[in-house]
Amino acid sequence: MEIIENGNVTTPQGYRAATVTAGIKASGKPDMTLIVSDAPARFAAAFTANTMAAPPVHYCRKLCRRSDRLRAIIVNSGNANACTGRRGFQDAQHTCQQVADSLGIDLDEVFVASTGRIGQRLPMEKIQAAIPRLCEGLDPEGGAAAATAIMTTDTVPKTVAARVEIDGVPVVVGGMAKGAGMIAPKLMPPEPHATMLAFVTSDAALEEGVIGDCLARTLPRSFNRITVDGDMSTNDTLVLTANGTAGNTPIRAGTVEADLFQRAVDEVTAHLARAMVLDGEGATKFVTVRVTGARQEVDADAVARAIANSLLCKTAWFGEDPNWGRIVDAAGYAGIELNPEVISLYYDDLAAVRAGMDAGTPEAELAAILKQPGFTVNLDLGLGDAEATIWTCDLSYDYVKINAEYTT
Amino acid sequence: MEIIENGNVTTPQGYRAATVTAGIKASGKPDMTLIVSDAPARFAAAFTANTMAAPPVHYCRKLCRRSDRLRAIIVNSGNANACTGRRGFQDAQHTCQQVADSLGIDLDEVFVASTGRIGQRLPMEKIQAAIPRLCEGLDPEGGAAAATAIMTTDTVPKTVAARVEIDGVPVVVGGMAKGAGMIAPKLMPPEPHATMLAFVTSDAALEEGVIGDCLARTLPRSFNRITVDGDMSTNDTLVLTANGTAGNTPIRAGTVEADLFQRAVDEVTAHLARAMVLDGEGATKFVTVRVTGARQEVDADAVARAIANSLLCKTAWFGEDPNWGRIVDAAGYAGIELNPEVISLYYDDLAAVRAGMDAGTPEAELAAILKQPGFTVNLDLGLGDAEATIWTCDLSYDYVKINAEYTT
Repeated sequence: MEIIENGNVTTPQGYRAATVTAGIKASGKPDMTLIVSDAPARFAAAFTANTMAAPPVHYCRKLCRRSDRLRAIIVNSGNANACTGRRGFQDAQHTCQQVADSLGIDLDEVFVASTGRIGQRLPMEKIQAAIPRLCEGLDPEGGAAAATAIMTTDTVPKTVAARVEIDGVPVVVGGMAKGAGMIAPKLMPPEPHATMLAFVTSDAALEEGVIGDCLARTLPRSFNRITVDGDMSTNDTLVLTANGTAGNTPIRAGTVEADLFQRAVDEVTAHLARAMVLDGEGATKFVTVRVTGARQEVDADAVARAIANSLLCKTAWFGEDPNWGRIVDAAGYAGIELNPEVISLYYDDLAAVRAGMDAGTPEAELAAILKQPGFTVNLDLGLGDAEATIWTCDLSYDYVKINAEYTT
Repeated sequence: MEIIENGNVTTPQGYRAATVTAGIKASGKPDMTLIVSDAPARFAAAFTANTMAAPPVHYCRKLCRRSDRLRAIIVNSGNANACTGRRGFQDAQHTCQQVADSLGIDLDEVFVASTGRIGQRLPMEKIQAAIPRLCEGLDPEGGAAAATAIMTTDTVPKTVAARVEIDGVPVVVGGMAKGAGMIAPKLMPPEPHATMLAFVTSDAALEEGVIGDCLARTLPRSFNRITVDGDMSTNDTLVLTANGTAGNTPIRAGTVEADLFQRAVDEVTAHLARAMVLDGEGATKFVTVRVTGARQEVDADAVARAIANSLLCKTAWFGEDPNWGRIVDAAGYAGIELNPEVISLYYDDLAAVRAGMDAGTPEAELAAILKQPGFTVNLDLGLGDAEATIWTCDLSYDYVKINAEYTT
């Protein structure tokens, strides 16, 4: 597999994208993008588990039930079209209808996603004025700019692509994502979480069913493994498309080729998920919380999430303080049975706790690990063989600043 | 009922307290206190639900099973005696034994609690040297100083007392508490959570069973209603004692007198719980999150806690930003079924959301409410008659500062 670092959603063949400033963001930065597949693409999507899911999420869930091909994805930032009721649903639908009409495609081939402030109606006149410009500006090189148009509190665009050979034919998977806060996704097909938006495109040819399986498998290896702040959004959306333009023999489920395609998708989704954490609001540390030795994976996951979302752990990491008591404390309220006497904790490979007590490692040595921009918290529960990993970040002054002052 | 604002644990008759600086805290501030009831007191206690509960918690849970009377409570701050294994348990027991020997009372009449840094053994020589000084310094006026000796990141001592008349006899309930961070108690008799410590004394005479019922009833009305940071501690402890010195006819369960006593205890515990939130680490706002219209109380409680622990809600409150979308978003991931179309949200009495959408109240009017030092977030789910209230605070730069720099 080859990683294409600067790759993006238009790196696979047969995709074009356009980006404009519609005027939704007060900042005057680009805030709308349109991604088009020249050929109808198979697709699968996953959405937030938040019960207050936004109208565009409701709209696209329904779309997933009645449609098996996509041609276009229209996205705006600056306004989440959330808590906007039936009118918000109609606004999502009208946006899709205008895109469909402008491109001469079917309404059911248009996907929509929004991110930004909750509780205000979309400025439909601005959106209506922007759509013709988007349709005119479609460009096979448009993927890089598209990644900037979906940003809100993100400081960098997040894109990547991967190339694999399927039966001697190069197949590309490209992706982009946004999300720096309100990030604790729990995306379920078609019901997953975070405001993260992620769009993954491919030119692979796939048999029926492959893309849905692929999406379901990639979620627990990527977006559902991250948390920035523990706040699950109303708008989290992942959509994965494959338009067949690469010309490979269509990939069938359960084959070596399907595994290879899965690995390319996993590479892209995991890269994007990690990029979101690296760009987490105010984040100064990338922390991998790995919990091993659990009786079952769900237990390991609960403990890893309790640690990753603990304000006391996150602020200790910001302070580069190997205060392992806070980690063990958080493990203790995860709601699962633990035996303190068999717990071990390591920062990277250095023991902080053995048999539930201080391992005697000099604090300066532990602190040196926490001074790195990234490190792993390895907690061994000592009870079984199951494990889980969560990627997270620290909690800094800038997190407070961004969220006490952010309104758009 | 009369509230005695400056009242404390020695305001009820028959209690004395002493406070010393044993040298456990690096700051050189008072760090040990001893409270003694001259007569054996009935008692009930509640402890953290954290599965990593500290050795003094394990010790006192056992004590609760074998003893029904207390004479002394020995407390240290600066070291939680948590994650210290069997030696930590022995240290707790040896501390109690020395107190018992010095006072000429039984080991089973001595209760112990610790708070502070996790993972280091208690400095037993310092504790051993301090105990004789504590026993010599017992003073019926010692309650005020005692409240300072249990502080860690607290900025103010927290005490109160209440007086009621039982059958014409004045009965007093006094209390003190500490706790500003790692505060999300879930105290269960005898298994409750937070590092909060709270000690409530009374001179009431009680029949058997009354004090246990009283403790169980007061928890959901006080300590189990608060969260500062969502982090449940290894050491949370509440102990309630009643020594009968007031000379009232012993109160029987299910009587008007038991209700009156309960109200006095509730007044003291709720005051102390609110005082912890007011002194929450870095807190600038006292926020009451009241969720009504739920199908059942457990649903209302889950929604109120999701909001109260949401970093995005807490930072918006710090920013005095009536960004109600974050509140509705948090409600949406509380794990219960909601109908967005019937949700209303009020800041104090001012509508921000009606029927799941912006109520149209000018933002400046809502913002004026958030500029107050305290306000209520009233969320009506519109589904039923059940409700729950959580007291919490905002998340400020100072929270990050305290917890990125706090090590002792």
